Amino acid sequence: MKYFVITGHRAATTGHFKLDDIAGGAGRLDILVRCVNSAFFLSHNLRKDVEAYLVCMGGEDAPKTVIFKGEELRYLNPDERSTASLIRNALMKPVEPGEEVKSSPGVYVSRMSFDDVMDDLSEKGEFVYLKEDGVDCREFEFPENPIFVLGDNRDLTEEEEAKLLSFSSEKINIGPVSLHADHCMIIVHNEVDRRSA
Amino acid sequence: MKYFVITGHRAATTGHFKLDDIAGGAGRLDILVRCVNSAFFLSHNLRKDVEAYLVCMGGEDAPKTVIFKGEELRYLNPDERSTASLIRNALMKPVEPGEEVKSSPGVYVSRMSFDDVMDDLSEKGEFVYLKEDGVDCREFEFPENPIFVLGDNRDLTEEEEAKLLSFSSEKINIGPVSLHADHCMIIVHNEVDRRSA
Repeated sequence: MKYFVITGHRAATTGHFKLDDIAGGAGRLDILVRCVNSAFFLSHNLRKDVEAYLVCMGGEDAPKTVIFKGEELRYLNPDERSTASLIRNALMKPVEPGEEVKSSPGVYVSRMSFDDVMDDLSEKGEFVYLKEDGVDCREFEFPENPIFVLGDNRDLTEEEEAKLLSFSSEKINIGPVSLHADHCMIIVHNEVDRRSA
Repeated sequence: MKYFVITGHRAATTGHFKLDDIAGGAGRLDILVRCVNSAFFLSHNLRKDVEAYLVCMGGEDAPKTVIFKGEELRYLNPDERSTASLIRNALMKPVEPGEEVKSSPGVYVSRMSFDDVMDDLSEKGEFVYLKEDGVDCREFEFPENPIFVLGDNRDLTEEEEAKLLSFSSEKINIGPVSLHADHCMIIVHNEVDRRSA
Protein backbone atom coordinates (compact mmCIF):
# COMPACT_ATOMS: atom_id res chain seq x y z
CA MET A 1 0.00 0.00 0.00
CA LYS A 2 1.05 3.61 -0.59
CA TYR A 3 -0.27 6.35 1.65
CA PHE A 4 -0.29 10.10 1.09
CA VAL A 5 -0.95 12.57 3.90
CA ILE A 6 -1.60 16.14 2.78
CA THR A 7 -2.22 18.85 5.35
CA GLY A 8 -4.64 21.57 4.33
CA HIS A 9 -3.69 24.21 6.84
CA ARG A 10 -6.73 26.37 6.12
CA ALA A 11 -8.94 23.78 4.40
CA ALA A 12 -12.66 23.80 5.22
CA THR A 13 -13.94 21.39 7.87
CA THR A 14 -17.66 21.97 7.31
CA GLY A 15 -19.63 21.58 4.10
CA HIS A 16 -20.62 25.25 4.10
CA PHE A 17 -18.72 26.31 1.05
CA LYS A 18 -19.62 26.75 -2.59
CA LEU A 19 -18.25 24.38 -5.19
CA ASP A 20 -17.61 27.52 -7.29
CA ASP A 21 -15.25 28.84 -4.65
CA ILE A 22 -13.06 25.96 -3.50
CA ALA A 23 -9.87 28.01 -3.99
CA GLY A 24 -11.28 30.85 -1.90
CA GLY A 25 -13.97 30.27 0.71
CA ALA A 26 -13.02 26.63 1.22
CA GLY A 27 -9.45 27.53 2.30
CA ARG A 28 -7.52 26.34 -0.76
CA LEU A 29 -9.39 23.06 -0.83
CA ASP A 30 -8.51 23.09 -4.55
CA ILE A 31 -4.99 22.00 -3.58
CA LEU A 32 -6.24 18.93 -1.71
CA VAL A 33 -8.60 18.12 -4.57
CA ARG A 34 -5.75 18.09 -7.07
CA CYS A 35 -3.78 15.86 -4.70
CA VAL A 36 -6.64 13.34 -4.77
CA ASN A 37 -6.47 13.37 -8.57
CA SER A 38 -2.70 12.77 -8.48
CA ALA A 39 -3.03 10.02 -5.88
CA PHE A 40 -5.44 7.84 -7.81
CA PHE A 41 -5.68 8.45 -11.54
CA LEU A 42 -4.10 6.24 -14.14
CA SER A 43 -4.90 6.67 -17.80
CA HIS A 44 -7.93 4.37 -17.78
CA ASN A 45 -8.02 3.18 -14.21
CA LEU A 46 -7.68 4.08 -10.55
CA ARG A 47 -4.77 3.08 -8.34
CA LYS A 48 -6.28 0.61 -5.90
CA ASP A 49 -3.15 0.36 -3.72
CA VAL A 50 -3.31 3.97 -2.54
CA GLU A 51 -4.95 5.77 0.37
CA ALA A 52 -4.99 9.56 0.64
CA TYR A 53 -5.47 11.37 3.97
CA LEU A 54 -6.57 14.99 3.67
CA VAL A 55 -6.01 16.68 7.02
CA CYS A 56 -8.34 19.71 7.05
CA MET A 57 -7.43 22.30 9.63
CA GLY A 58 -9.48 25.37 8.72
CA GLY A 59 -12.64 26.76 10.27
CA GLU A 60 -14.54 26.13 13.45
CA ASP A 61 -15.00 22.39 13.23
CA ALA A 62 -11.26 21.60 12.80
CA PRO A 63 -9.59 19.22 12.73
CA LYS A 64 -11.16 16.71 10.39
CA THR A 65 -9.50 14.20 8.12
CA VAL A 66 -11.12 13.01 4.90
CA ILE A 67 -9.77 9.66 3.72
CA PHE A 68 -9.91 8.27 0.17
CA LYS A 69 -9.29 4.52 -0.09
CA GLY A 70 -8.43 3.34 -3.59
CA GLU A 71 -9.57 -0.20 -3.08
CA GLU A 72 -13.18 0.82 -2.44
CA LEU A 73 -13.28 4.08 -4.34
CA ARG A 74 -16.16 4.83 -6.71
CA TYR A 75 -17.61 7.95 -8.34
CA LEU A 76 -14.21 9.65 -8.49
CA ASN A 77 -13.82 11.79 -11.61
CA PRO A 78 -10.70 13.73 -12.54
CA ASP A 79 -12.23 17.22 -12.53
CA GLU A 80 -11.86 19.39 -9.42
CA ARG A 81 -15.51 20.22 -8.94
CA SER A 82 -16.74 16.63 -8.67
CA THR A 83 -13.96 15.66 -6.26
CA ALA A 84 -14.66 18.76 -4.17
CA SER A 85 -18.26 17.59 -4.04
CA LEU A 86 -17.20 14.20 -2.64
CA ILE A 87 -15.16 16.00 0.04
CA ARG A 88 -18.02 18.36 0.85
CA ASN A 89 -20.38 15.40 1.26
CA ALA A 90 -17.90 13.84 3.67
CA LEU A 91 -17.55 17.07 5.67
CA MET A 92 -21.34 17.30 5.97
CA LYS A 93 -21.59 13.94 7.75
CA PRO A 94 -22.00 14.03 11.52
CA VAL A 95 -18.94 12.36 13.05
CA GLU A 96 -17.86 11.81 16.65
CA PRO A 97 -14.26 11.68 17.91
CA GLY A 98 -12.84 8.19 17.34
CA GLU A 99 -15.32 7.39 14.56
CA GLU A 100 -14.66 6.94 10.84
CA VAL A 101 -17.86 7.59 8.89
CA LYS A 102 -18.32 6.55 5.26
CA SER A 103 -19.86 9.24 3.03
CA SER A 104 -19.58 7.41 -0.31
CA PRO A 105 -17.78 4.27 -1.50
CA GLY A 106 -14.13 4.68 -0.53
CA VAL A 107 -14.56 8.11 1.11
CA TYR A 108 -14.52 8.51 4.89
CA VAL A 109 -14.46 11.37 7.36
CA SER A 110 -13.05 11.42 10.88
CA ARG A 111 -12.07 13.96 13.52
CA MET A 112 -8.42 12.95 13.37
CA SER A 113 -5.83 15.70 13.73
CA PHE A 114 -2.45 15.61 11.98
CA ASP A 115 -0.96 13.98 15.09
CA ASP A 116 -3.75 11.39 15.19
CA VAL A 117 -3.14 10.53 11.54
CA MET A 118 0.58 10.11 12.20
CA ASP A 119 -0.12 7.84 15.18
CA ASP A 120 -2.68 5.82 13.23
CA LEU A 121 -0.54 5.33 10.13
CA SER A 122 2.67 4.63 12.03
CA GLU A 123 1.44 1.07 12.47
CA LYS A 124 0.79 0.60 8.76
CA GLY A 125 4.01 1.65 7.06
CA GLU A 126 7.04 3.92 7.12
CA PHE A 127 6.97 7.68 6.81
CA VAL A 128 8.69 9.55 3.99
CA TYR A 129 8.69 13.34 4.17
CA LEU A 130 8.61 15.23 0.88
CA LYS A 131 10.86 18.19 1.47
CA GLU A 132 13.31 20.23 -0.59
CA ASP A 133 16.31 19.30 1.57
CA GLY A 134 15.68 15.56 1.24
CA VAL A 135 17.64 13.13 -0.89
CA ASP A 136 16.78 12.79 -4.56
CA CYS A 137 13.88 10.33 -4.89
CA ARG A 138 15.82 8.55 -7.67
CA GLU A 139 18.48 7.61 -5.12
CA PHE A 140 16.03 6.60 -2.42
CA GLU A 141 15.20 3.09 -1.32
CA PHE A 142 11.44 3.13 -0.85
CA PRO A 143 9.98 1.13 2.05
CA GLU A 144 7.37 -1.48 1.28
CA ASN A 145 4.44 0.58 2.52
CA PRO A 146 5.54 4.19 2.18
CA ILE A 147 3.54 6.96 3.85
CA PHE A 148 4.36 10.16 1.98
CA VAL A 149 3.73 13.35 3.94
CA LEU A 150 3.33 16.76 2.28
CA GLY A 151 2.18 20.27 3.12
CA ASP A 152 -0.32 22.12 0.95
CA ASN A 153 0.88 25.54 -0.22
CA ARG A 154 2.44 26.02 3.22
CA ASP A 155 5.19 23.94 4.75
CA LEU A 156 4.38 21.71 7.69
CA THR A 157 4.39 23.70 10.94
CA GLU A 158 7.25 23.15 13.38
CA GLU A 159 4.94 21.05 15.56
CA GLU A 160 3.79 18.90 12.66
CA GLU A 161 7.34 18.42 11.47
CA ALA A 162 8.49 17.44 14.98
CA LYS A 163 5.71 14.86 15.23
CA LEU A 164 6.58 13.39 11.84
CA LEU A 165 10.31 13.33 12.53
CA SER A 166 9.66 11.54 15.84
CA PHE A 167 8.74 8.52 13.70
CA SER A 168 11.22 8.83 10.86
CA SER A 169 13.81 11.21 9.47
CA GLU A 170 13.55 9.92 5.88
CA LYS A 171 13.20 12.87 3.50
CA ILE A 172 13.10 12.92 -0.26
CA ASN A 173 12.92 15.65 -2.86
CA ILE A 174 11.59 15.24 -6.36
CA GLY A 175 14.11 17.19 -8.39
CA PRO A 176 15.89 20.50 -8.85
CA VAL A 177 12.75 22.66 -8.98
CA SER A 178 10.08 23.12 -6.27
CA LEU A 179 6.64 22.05 -7.41
CA HIS A 180 3.06 22.07 -6.17
CA ALA A 181 2.09 19.17 -3.87
CA ASP A 182 -0.02 17.41 -6.52
CA HIS A 183 2.83 17.59 -9.03
CA CYS A 184 5.31 16.17 -6.51
CA MET A 185 2.98 13.21 -6.03
CA ILE A 186 3.09 12.44 -9.76
CA ILE A 187 6.89 12.32 -9.69
CA VAL A 188 6.86 10.06 -6.63
CA HIS A 189 4.33 7.69 -8.19
CA ASN A 190 6.41 7.54 -11.37
CA GLU A 191 9.53 6.66 -9.44
CA VAL A 192 7.77 3.94 -7.45
CA ASP A 193 6.09 2.62 -10.63
CA ARG A 194 9.48 2.31 -12.27
CA ARG A 195 10.91 0.35 -9.33
CA SER A 196 8.06 -2.14 -9.38
CA ALA A 197 7.89 -2.47 -13.18
CA MET B 1 11.56 27.39 -25.21
CA LYS B 2 9.38 24.36 -24.52
CA TYR B 3 6.11 23.92 -26.37
CA PHE B 4 3.19 21.64 -25.56
CA VAL B 5 0.45 20.89 -28.07
CA ILE B 6 -2.64 19.19 -26.63
CA THR B 7 -5.50 18.24 -28.88
CA GLY B 8 -8.95 18.47 -27.35
CA HIS B 9 -10.85 16.30 -29.79
CA ARG B 10 -14.25 17.40 -28.50
CA ALA B 11 -13.25 20.59 -26.67
CA ALA B 12 -15.56 23.58 -26.97
CA THR B 13 -14.78 26.24 -29.59
CA THR B 14 -17.33 28.81 -28.48
CA GLY B 15 -17.73 30.40 -25.07
CA HIS B 16 -21.25 29.00 -24.68
CA PHE B 17 -20.56 26.62 -21.84
CA LYS B 18 -20.93 26.84 -18.10
CA LEU B 19 -17.88 26.98 -15.88
CA ASP B 20 -19.71 24.45 -13.68
CA ASP B 21 -19.73 21.95 -16.52
CA ILE B 22 -16.31 22.00 -18.17
CA ALA B 23 -16.01 18.20 -17.98
CA GLY B 24 -19.40 17.76 -19.64
CA GLY B 25 -20.88 20.43 -21.89
CA ALA B 26 -17.48 21.89 -22.77
CA GLY B 27 -16.26 18.58 -24.28
CA ARG B 28 -13.75 17.56 -21.61
CA LEU B 29 -12.22 21.00 -21.50
CA ASP B 30 -11.21 20.02 -17.95
CA ILE B 31 -8.40 17.93 -19.46
CA LEU B 32 -6.96 20.90 -21.35
CA VAL B 33 -7.30 23.07 -18.24
CA ARG B 34 -5.26 20.63 -16.17
CA CYS B 35 -2.65 20.57 -18.95
CA VAL B 36 -2.31 24.36 -18.66
CA ASN B 37 -1.71 23.93 -14.92
CA SER B 38 0.97 21.30 -15.58
CA ALA B 39 2.61 23.39 -18.30
CA PHE B 40 3.19 26.49 -16.20
CA PHE B 41 3.08 26.05 -12.45
CA LEU B 42 6.13 25.93 -10.25
CA SER B 43 5.82 26.07 -6.48
CA HIS B 44 5.88 29.86 -6.25
CA ASN B 45 6.28 30.89 -9.83
CA LEU B 46 5.26 30.33 -13.44
CA ARG B 47 7.47 28.77 -16.10
CA LYS B 48 8.21 31.61 -18.48
CA ASP B 49 9.95 29.43 -21.06
CA VAL B 50 6.80 27.47 -21.97
CA GLU B 51 4.01 27.91 -24.51
CA ALA B 52 0.92 25.68 -24.50
CA TYR B 53 -1.25 25.22 -27.59
CA LEU B 54 -4.75 23.90 -26.89
CA VAL B 55 -6.23 22.68 -30.17
CA CYS B 56 -10.01 22.73 -29.66
CA MET B 57 -11.90 20.62 -32.16
CA GLY B 58 -15.42 20.34 -30.77
CA GLY B 59 -18.60 22.15 -31.76
CA GLU B 60 -19.66 24.27 -34.70
CA ASP B 61 -16.90 26.85 -34.66
CA ALA B 62 -14.03 24.33 -34.81
CA PRO B 63 -11.14 24.41 -35.13
CA LYS B 64 -9.74 27.00 -32.78
CA THR B 65 -6.45 27.03 -30.93
CA VAL B 66 -6.01 28.82 -27.62
CA ILE B 67 -2.38 29.65 -26.88
CA PHE B 68 -0.87 30.35 -23.44
CA LYS B 69 2.52 32.10 -23.54
CA GLY B 70 4.44 31.86 -20.29
CA GLU B 71 6.52 34.93 -20.88
CA GLU B 72 3.51 37.26 -20.93
CA LEU B 73 1.11 35.24 -18.81
CA ARG B 74 -0.85 36.92 -16.03
CA TYR B 75 -3.97 36.10 -14.00
CA LEU B 76 -3.31 32.35 -14.19
CA ASN B 77 -4.35 30.54 -11.02
CA PRO B 78 -3.93 26.83 -10.38
CA ASP B 79 -7.62 25.96 -9.96
CA GLU B 80 -9.55 24.58 -12.91
CA ARG B 81 -12.42 27.02 -12.83
CA SER B 82 -10.34 30.18 -13.19
CA THR B 83 -8.25 28.70 -16.01
CA ALA B 84 -11.43 27.56 -17.78
CA SER B 85 -12.62 31.14 -17.48
CA LEU B 86 -9.48 32.43 -19.25
CA ILE B 87 -10.10 29.90 -22.05
CA ARG B 88 -13.77 30.83 -22.30
CA ASN B 89 -12.86 34.50 -22.57
CA ALA B 90 -10.49 33.62 -25.41
CA LEU B 91 -13.13 31.55 -27.23
CA MET B 92 -15.59 34.47 -26.98
CA LYS B 93 -13.29 36.81 -28.92
CA PRO B 94 -14.13 37.34 -32.59
CA VAL B 95 -11.22 36.00 -34.65
CA GLU B 96 -10.63 35.72 -38.39
CA PRO B 97 -8.59 33.02 -40.13
CA GLY B 98 -4.89 33.94 -40.03
CA GLU B 99 -5.34 36.20 -37.00
CA GLU B 100 -4.08 35.68 -33.44
CA VAL B 101 -6.20 37.71 -31.01
CA LYS B 102 -5.15 38.44 -27.43
CA SER B 103 -7.88 37.92 -24.84
CA SER B 104 -5.79 38.55 -21.71
CA PRO B 105 -2.06 38.92 -20.99
CA GLY B 106 -0.38 35.82 -22.42
CA VAL B 107 -3.59 34.22 -23.73
CA TYR B 108 -4.40 34.21 -27.45
CA VAL B 109 -6.99 32.62 -29.70
CA SER B 110 -6.70 31.72 -33.38
CA ARG B 111 -8.52 29.60 -35.94
CA MET B 112 -5.54 27.27 -36.36
CA SER B 113 -6.26 23.58 -36.88
CA PHE B 114 -3.97 20.83 -35.63
CA ASP B 115 -2.22 20.83 -39.03
CA ASP B 116 -1.82 24.61 -38.92
CA VAL B 117 -0.26 24.40 -35.45
CA MET B 118 2.17 21.72 -36.66
CA ASP B 119 3.16 23.85 -39.66
CA ASP B 120 3.53 26.95 -37.51
CA LEU B 121 5.60 25.34 -34.78
CA SER B 122 7.79 23.31 -37.15
CA GLU B 123 9.83 26.48 -37.65
CA LYS B 124 10.34 27.01 -33.94
CA GLY B 125 11.64 23.69 -32.64
CA GLU B 126 11.58 19.92 -32.96
CA PHE B 127 8.59 17.70 -32.38
CA VAL B 128 8.51 15.02 -29.69
CA TYR B 129 5.45 12.75 -29.62
CA LEU B 130 4.36 11.45 -26.21
CA LYS B 131 3.24 7.92 -26.90
CA GLU B 132 3.33 4.60 -25.06
CA ASP B 133 5.55 2.91 -27.68
CA GLY B 134 8.19 5.65 -27.53
CA VAL B 135 11.58 5.40 -25.86
CA ASP B 136 11.86 6.02 -22.14
CA CYS B 137 12.15 9.79 -21.58
CA ARG B 138 15.10 9.12 -19.23
CA GLU B 139 17.07 7.73 -22.18
CA PHE B 140 16.07 10.48 -24.58
CA GLU B 141 18.22 13.32 -25.80
CA PHE B 142 15.90 16.32 -25.72
CA PRO B 143 16.24 18.88 -28.53
CA GLU B 144 16.90 22.49 -27.59
CA ASN B 145 13.37 23.67 -28.28
CA PRO B 146 11.18 20.61 -27.85
CA ILE B 147 7.57 20.66 -29.02
CA PHE B 148 5.75 17.97 -27.06
CA VAL B 149 2.57 16.69 -28.70
CA LEU B 150 -0.16 14.84 -26.76
CA GLY B 151 -3.74 13.74 -27.19
CA ASP B 152 -6.39 14.44 -24.58
CA ASN B 153 -8.25 11.36 -23.36
CA ARG B 154 -8.19 10.07 -26.93
CA ASP B 155 -5.13 9.24 -28.97
CA LEU B 156 -4.22 11.41 -31.91
CA THR B 157 -6.26 10.44 -34.98
CA GLU B 158 -4.47 8.66 -37.83
CA GLU B 159 -4.46 11.91 -39.82
CA GLU B 160 -3.02 13.92 -36.93
CA GLU B 161 -0.39 11.29 -36.28
CA ALA B 162 0.59 11.20 -39.97
CA LYS B 163 0.96 14.98 -40.01
CA LEU B 164 3.12 14.95 -36.89
CA LEU B 165 5.27 12.05 -38.09
CA SER B 166 5.85 13.86 -41.39
CA PHE B 167 8.01 16.26 -39.36
CA SER B 168 9.62 13.90 -36.88
CA SER B 169 9.44 10.31 -35.70
CA GLU B 170 10.81 11.04 -32.21
CA LYS B 171 8.57 9.39 -29.61
CA ILE B 172 8.98 9.18 -25.86
CA ASN B 173 7.07 7.51 -23.08
CA ILE B 174 7.11 8.57 -19.47
CA GLY B 175 7.30 5.24 -17.67
CA PRO B 176 5.78 1.82 -17.24
CA VAL B 177 2.22 3.01 -16.53
CA SER B 178 -0.08 5.05 -18.79
CA LEU B 179 -1.09 8.37 -17.27
CA HIS B 180 -3.38 11.30 -18.01
CA ALA B 181 -1.97 13.95 -20.34
CA ASP B 182 -1.43 16.51 -17.57
CA HIS B 183 0.46 13.96 -15.46
CA CYS B 184 2.70 13.01 -18.39
CA MET B 185 3.61 16.67 -18.76
CA ILE B 186 4.81 16.79 -15.13
CA ILE B 187 7.12 13.85 -15.74
CA VAL B 188 8.50 15.42 -18.91
CA HIS B 189 9.11 18.75 -17.18
CA ASN B 190 10.88 16.97 -14.33
CA GLU B 191 13.16 15.14 -16.74
CA VAL B 192 14.02 18.32 -18.65
CA ASP B 193 14.52 20.22 -15.36
CA ARG B 194 17.00 17.59 -14.23
CA ARG B 195 18.99 17.83 -17.47
CA SER B 196 19.29 21.59 -17.20
CA ALA B 197 19.99 21.67 -13.45
